[in-house]
Amino acid sequence: MTDNTEEKNIKLIIAYDGTGYFGWQRQLNRPTIQGTIEKKIELMAGKPVSLIASGRTDAGVHAVYQVANFRSSSTITPPVFLKGFNSLLPDSIIIKHAEYVPIDFHSRYDAKAKVYEYKIYNENTRSPFLRHYTWHIPRLLDMQAMEKCLDIVQGTHDFSSFCSAGNGNINTVRNMIKAKLKIQNDNILSFFFEANGFLRHMVRNIMGTIVKAGLREISIDRFVEILELKDRREAGEKAPPGGLYLVNVSY
Amino acid sequence: MTDNTEEKNIKLIIAYDGTGYFGWQRQLNRPTIQGTIEKKIELMAGKPVSLIASGRTDAGVHAVYQVANFRSSSTITPPVFLKGFNSLLPDSIIIKHAEYVPIDFHSRYDAKAKVYEYKIYNENTRSPFLRHYTWHIPRLLDMQAMEKCLDIVQGTHDFSSFCSAGNGNINTVRNMIKAKLKIQNDNILSFFFEANGFLRHMVRNIMGTIVKAGLREISIDRFVEILELKDRREAGEKAPPGGLYLVNVSY
Repeated sequence: MTDNTEEKNIKLIIAYDGTGYFGWQRQLNRPTIQGTIEKKIELMAGKPVSLIASGRTDAGVHAVYQVANFRSSSTITPPVFLKGFNSLLPDSIIIKHAEYVPIDFHSRYDAKAKVYEYKIYNENTRSPFLRHYTWHIPRLLDMQAMEKCLDIVQGTHDFSSFCSAGNGNINTVRNMIKAKLKIQNDNILSFFFEANGFLRHMVRNIMGTIVKAGLREISIDRFVEILELKDRREAGEKAPPGGLYLVNVSY
Repeated sequence: MTDNTEEKNIKLIIAYDGTGYFGWQRQLNRPTIQGTIEKKIELMAGKPVSLIASGRTDAGVHAVYQVANFRSSSTITPPVFLKGFNSLLPDSIIIKHAEYVPIDFHSRYDAKAKVYEYKIYNENTRSPFLRHYTWHIPRLLDMQAMEKCLDIVQGTHDFSSFCSAGNGNINTVRNMIKAKLKIQNDNILSFFFEANGFLRHMVRNIMGTIVKAGLREISIDRFVEILELKDRREAGEKAPPGGLYLVNVSY
């Protein structure tokens, strides 16, 4: 090798408004978060890189705290990368932090737990300002019923009923460390889910079914049954992507 | 006249996310709030109408409470119009209320006072979620200095210094009934301006200059001087449109 510069591993903390993006994962001729950031890295580092995230987010899903890393032999330091990113990236993506990490650090494999937040706007009339950022439910919701569902999903379960096809995972058992509802002002309901890992569409599938319980379309017993049946066809339709936020990743 | 149906006057209360619109006023081949709503009225009433607002808002400016009225001989009642609007309009516009008003009611001429809110996001790093909804100021702001400026603009003044060219008004005297700053959580600063009328870009021009005082680029004495000089060239650049919201109109 003529280039004997040592390869370094840089970890980024990223926030993004997923509206208008086709999700995290790079796609040909379609704007994605990964694709957009990788292009800016290449612009600065002079070579294409592969950006590894803690996990993919779907089209329209947001992140307040996504973790990703890339390896590069560029001599650009993390603070300089940070400054460059934030002047080059569109306003819908911000890099909050950049730092060197050990060369073997891997954003996905090393993640111990992740937290997602799902926001519902529970008001008679929809809000033009929250349309991309919440799920608007105009009808009355039974908070106690939804909290019972959250208690039920806590703990270690086979989450097959809440896993969309194409997950590719053989093991569908996950540990839901915490599932909590916080009611914010302006009738915003925030559902927090912390787990050691999430299956495809898991939070949105759980939310779709919790809302059915909140609307009293299904009973709590039925919710338990859906979880135990381990069959995706039993659960409610998945909640829309705009209400979902990746809010933390721990290592 | 073959159509002897009595003409009625319908008043609407409207909220909209101004992002992506070229302001309130109808334009050929460009999406505007007025144009979008008028098309839906025509669709329902069967005839083109002219929608009169309390005032125009510029491209990118929002409304939480805009008032507009239109005259129509349609037999469709306000509740039915309301339902129709909210199923036909895009999610970025919502009609909050519709009612019959006396035939001579005029949204613009009869308005006694209007309230605008201007939101600043005062944090080191920008937020992808607030980019269309606040003005991001990363530097420290002197709250006391800005509050002094608000005190100064209160009362009856010739606001020429804060009036953009093309206003078309001969009389540039307005009564600023109230100008107040409220600090919300998450470092959102909300500036409220209540006046019997506003000149073109008046709030954004005032805000651009208040922020200069907040950044200590100009003194309070200089702010007084700018107001008294009655010359637009003296004031700061106008603040960006995304932070501005029409929040009330009283009659």
